[in-house]
Amino acid sequence: MGQRATISTINGVNLKALFEPSRIAVIGASRRKEAVGYAILHNLAAAGFQGKIYPVNPKADRIDDLICYPTILDVPDSIDLAVIIVPSASAPETLEACGKKGIHTAIVVSAGFREIGGEGIRLERELAEVAKRYSISVLGPNCLGLINTDPTISMNASFSRTMPRPGNIAFVSQSGALCTAILDYAKGENIGFSKFVSLGNKANLTELEILAYLKDDPKTSVILMYLEDLVDGSAFIQLVREITGDMKHPKPILAIKAGRTPQGAKAASSHTGSLMGSDEVYDAIFKQGGVLRVDSVNEIFDLAIAFASGVIPKSNRVAIVTNAGGPGIMATDSCVRYGLEMAELGSKTKEALKKVLPETANLSNPVDVIGDAQQDRYEHALTHVLNDPQVDNVVVILTPQAMTDIEGTARTIVKVNQTTKKTLLACFMGIVDVTPGVKILEEHDVPHYRFPEEAARALSALVRYKEWIDRPRTEVKTFPVDLKITETIIRESKSQNQKLLNTYQAMKILQAYGFPMLPFELAHSAGEAADKAKAIGFPVAIKVVSSTIIHKLDVGGVQLNLHSSLEVERAFEAMMHNIRTREPKAKVEGVLVQKMGERGREVILGMKRDPHFGPILMFGFGGTYVEVFKDVTFRLAPIRQLGAKRMIESIRAYPILKGVRGEAPADFNGIIDCLQRLSQLACDQPEIIEIDVNPLVTYESGKGVVVVDARMILK
Amino acid sequence: MGQRATISTINGVNLKALFEPSRIAVIGASRRKEAVGYAILHNLAAAGFQGKIYPVNPKADRIDDLICYPTILDVPDSIDLAVIIVPSASAPETLEACGKKGIHTAIVVSAGFREIGGEGIRLERELAEVAKRYSISVLGPNCLGLINTDPTISMNASFSRTMPRPGNIAFVSQSGALCTAILDYAKGENIGFSKFVSLGNKANLTELEILAYLKDDPKTSVILMYLEDLVDGSAFIQLVREITGDMKHPKPILAIKAGRTPQGAKAASSHTGSLMGSDEVYDAIFKQGGVLRVDSVNEIFDLAIAFASGVIPKSNRVAIVTNAGGPGIMATDSCVRYGLEMAELGSKTKEALKKVLPETANLSNPVDVIGDAQQDRYEHALTHVLNDPQVDNVVVILTPQAMTDIEGTARTIVKVNQTTKKTLLACFMGIVDVTPGVKILEEHDVPHYRFPEEAARALSALVRYKEWIDRPRTEVKTFPVDLKITETIIRESKSQNQKLLNTYQAMKILQAYGFPMLPFELAHSAGEAADKAKAIGFPVAIKVVSSTIIHKLDVGGVQLNLHSSLEVERAFEAMMHNIRTREPKAKVEGVLVQKMGERGREVILGMKRDPHFGPILMFGFGGTYVEVFKDVTFRLAPIRQLGAKRMIESIRAYPILKGVRGEAPADFNGIIDCLQRLSQLACDQPEIIEIDVNPLVTYESGKGVVVVDARMILK
Repeated sequence: MGQRATISTINGVNLKALFEPSRIAVIGASRRKEAVGYAILHNLAAAGFQGKIYPVNPKADRIDDLICYPTILDVPDSIDLAVIIVPSASAPETLEACGKKGIHTAIVVSAGFREIGGEGIRLERELAEVAKRYSISVLGPNCLGLINTDPTISMNASFSRTMPRPGNIAFVSQSGALCTAILDYAKGENIGFSKFVSLGNKANLTELEILAYLKDDPKTSVILMYLEDLVDGSAFIQLVREITGDMKHPKPILAIKAGRTPQGAKAASSHTGSLMGSDEVYDAIFKQGGVLRVDSVNEIFDLAIAFASGVIPKSNRVAIVTNAGGPGIMATDSCVRYGLEMAELGSKTKEALKKVLPETANLSNPVDVIGDAQQDRYEHALTHVLNDPQVDNVVVILTPQAMTDIEGTARTIVKVNQTTKKTLLACFMGIVDVTPGVKILEEHDVPHYRFPEEAARALSALVRYKEWIDRPRTEVKTFPVDLKITETIIRESKSQNQKLLNTYQAMKILQAYGFPMLPFELAHSAGEAADKAKAIGFPVAIKVVSSTIIHKLDVGGVQLNLHSSLEVERAFEAMMHNIRTREPKAKVEGVLVQKMGERGREVILGMKRDPHFGPILMFGFGGTYVEVFKDVTFRLAPIRQLGAKRMIESIRAYPILKGVRGEAPADFNGIIDCLQRLSQLACDQPEIIEIDVNPLVTYESGKGVVVVDARMILK
Repeated sequence: MGQRATISTINGVNLKALFEPSRIAVIGASRRKEAVGYAILHNLAAAGFQGKIYPVNPKADRIDDLICYPTILDVPDSIDLAVIIVPSASAPETLEACGKKGIHTAIVVSAGFREIGGEGIRLERELAEVAKRYSISVLGPNCLGLINTDPTISMNASFSRTMPRPGNIAFVSQSGALCTAILDYAKGENIGFSKFVSLGNKANLTELEILAYLKDDPKTSVILMYLEDLVDGSAFIQLVREITGDMKHPKPILAIKAGRTPQGAKAASSHTGSLMGSDEVYDAIFKQGGVLRVDSVNEIFDLAIAFASGVIPKSNRVAIVTNAGGPGIMATDSCVRYGLEMAELGSKTKEALKKVLPETANLSNPVDVIGDAQQDRYEHALTHVLNDPQVDNVVVILTPQAMTDIEGTARTIVKVNQTTKKTLLACFMGIVDVTPGVKILEEHDVPHYRFPEEAARALSALVRYKEWIDRPRTEVKTFPVDLKITETIIRESKSQNQKLLNTYQAMKILQAYGFPMLPFELAHSAGEAADKAKAIGFPVAIKVVSSTIIHKLDVGGVQLNLHSSLEVERAFEAMMHNIRTREPKAKVEGVLVQKMGERGREVILGMKRDPHFGPILMFGFGGTYVEVFKDVTFRLAPIRQLGAKRMIESIRAYPILKGVRGEAPADFNGIIDCLQRLSQLACDQPEIIEIDVNPLVTYESGKGVVVVDARMILK
């Protein structure tokens, strides 16, 4: 992680040469039509590249009508971009020649690197070193290449035969093969792209540098990604937060992260050799960065065409206009399932509809214009429904019935769409008969779907994105804490080679970080325990303090509800006896004498330091519940106040915290405060690799929270 | 419900005339090309109907080249099927004329009935009466018509322009407009149908009669349904259980039930005016009948083409063969998400693969044959993987890469598919370039998908259907019960106009039905309560017995853990005082003195009699949990042993019942027994409309269950 460039430097000039070169050298260009080295050269020319192309091949004088050079050093002109398709073994040396020639940007298409293991790993490392030594920005290796549809560039520097039509969607993929499938799919669905980038093995350039370029690319307004891993979670979050929400004209990012299931992740490992984080961590990263995570290629494009239209809904209230009842019900089902709200049409709207629709029409939402509706009836219905202040989104459904004028209705929808600022999605059900209508919608950028559920899903994504943009912005809070106590404890433990902090140490650190605690003291004898208990006030609990005992309960190391000095003394003796019997080698540093707290609702806070992504915070509901349902949520530290709030709201047991059967809500502010303190602790103290605050007991709103027990592990 | 025909009579001869008529009269045939009355006549002729067509229209002599008759009574020949397209107001009289003519089968296409309310409802009732009086089987009204693609019939008796190609899939739809969309979609995807039925308002023929016909239709092997309601849940379950599992060659049924969400159901109501049951009830009906419920049109056809191939997998173990790593990971993700198991390939298979695949290939599942794979490599890989005894299903993925021979690979897949009995699904990713390959797969009935997640979803449906077919068959058990006690209690309560049974009565009925109870007695005074407590043995609970108090706890009507006669007496007095104060008008019939039970895990059993579907059983986890998470499941009574077991297994809290942290499992046999007894009680006693057994406490496996409290409400 330390080796990653910062955002300001990934925002460098080099990527202009990658995306907008004037002179491209194709090193390893070939005359054999079935070779990749021919395909790329051919595709560059076929797509009408606006600059100049220099094939490099020692065995050829000309390829097609281009002069060929034996080596890159023989090329007479300066070169912006080298596309390298030589065998992997000679790739490092070829890249070095590019460096000597003064080329600062390259795409290494060749495979045979990290993905094959062994020698491939070594070659990739060498390639990366050459790139670094000569300051070359390298895309790949093992990639499909790069496409820029901007007519002033018109570059297909890839071995995909398909050059997509220009559009405002950028696609960035960590799988080259998926790119070919996507390009074919996009051709069939007539989807346009601004840029198409195959990342390959990410030996040098990664998703970060590409995103930084796309951030400022005026041709791109929606970014799609297929990812198998991320090189740096924190940097990714920081960058995409800016892209998706904080810059002047934010751009939505939609991502498929493969390797979602444990088995899928295993396959990813053997495929790219990259270290896969667990899926929950990626979920957290996407949530924190405002990236909409999707599961399938279908879905990503269904969403993308809605986003590409550029209309962001004001609210989640939707009306449906349909010429068929059944599909209207299906659309309603889907809208509700995707969290949209069916708009209640105003009486004015209903009266207006009554005048223009036949008697048998349904004037409530979903509005049914009846099977024999022509475009005029659609136009009336759409206009009135869009005028209703309760309606911010409309899904218009057409089924190809006997009387339906499909093209006429499409033209009407286009016309209505041009006069409204509200979101209008069309659903022309079918494939063959509806095609002429769909083409009209397509040409005029009306997002269109084959079935209502797809339209509802896309609309719900627009709404979620709107919520993201509009979210209240909160800052990472820094609490005054007692670093000295914390660092002394950690230093002492380290010096004694002690990995597990004992309960007293863990509690002291949490106290130093301002967590609300039940009063507690350390005692070394039965008498001292009794005295301290008296000072604290009964009832108390005593807990063994040990840097070797992981599960205190299992060795009889916890005694609750002690009401007198005598009870404390007896409990102390019994505990020591238990431990001596059950775990004779245990190192006992004393007992924690702790005030018994009132009963409340129990939650768990935790932190685990991921070798790849740094500290990851956890929040969950306590007790048996968390074990059975794994009802927990994660976020990368640092978190903001809003992030902490969202963590609490996102667990399934949230209703229990809100209060059931008239019960008051939990003290959310107290939990939010603790989560932020935990975040600060995790960021401050890299020596701590795991923390459990379990349980944190929360009382009713305003009555606070207290830490009852804790556990910490050092590196 | 009492008016519904039984399965044997819905299996009647009339439907032969509906699906396979020789002579069709089209009443309301028209010369106006834009009229439905023209469209149907034209479609019948255009589809090449193999019988004879008789247009009926008093204002025409001929339509196209057919002789036209002024009324149906003027038609010289006998008629098998009348298709009626006259205005709704004259439909009953037209149907009556058909009856007089001796026609026993009709399709009423005309709209303007129940769906428009008011006069339409009256007309529909009249139509149904005529149908009954003349024993005419009537499809509709308000429907698109009916299609039979059997070449010996070749009938398009609908106003859809599209006649689908023949196939083995039957489609039955309660929405006519959806039919037009589906037919257009199927044309685009080249999906064939055996029969296509638009049910309309179901005034006479319903899904039951149509299903009974399709059950025995040799041309149909898969049945798809779009439903908005069911006319009779029990009859539906009985019939579809036979179709989907119990007959010799069972046929899968896939269904979309619209109006899934409350809002969707509201739309359904206003659309068809039909009474919608709650969604959970439909879920229960489909589960009990082995019907696979799906959410979307996409999904139903993705599943249908897999089922249409006729191959049912042996297990859920799947292997993936791909020419691209990324899509392989996505497929793995999807398979795992849909509950499939990634097969562990045997060492023999891996060795064999090693010999035929390049060094960089991935020999584990997902098997990656690498981007430059030609058909020979696919053939080797598929053959070896299909030979592995660990593999019962294969998903083969193709991305259209530079070196890929799409058609050659498709032909190879067809060849391999013809030599294996295992399930083989293909996924050719993309649209345009892959089309020639997809066509080849289509022609040879290889189920094919555009993206891996669709293949995984379809495969998982096949696996679920296999599990349904293979499920152990259990019978509805009849326990010996004490009907006399039960019926006396009910009779007495009814005679006193008492709707709510008191706790003692409810407990007595459960006892009469053999539920295991804690010992209990009824007492009328403090002294009697103390005596009975002594006889039962301490500790005891006392609970107020009242037919007017619904929530005993709220009026202080429950006292737990009483350890002596004195405590019982005091509790009795306190309770009476509480009730007098809080609910002075309450009718108190005594107190229930009940032995305190040991603690255990609490569950809830319940029954609610639905006016439409009869008794519906409920099972859920007890305590706060059930309130917050609504973690309950439903089944229509009667249930079998397996159904009871499935109810328990299907709640989310099932792991808690299985036991967490080394805890023993709950007494499942005890719960299953109680659910079956509850089922019997619900079926025996139609006067009881609601039952709560809450809580039923379950102890560890083998240690039984006991009813702690109960509530029953009479009609």
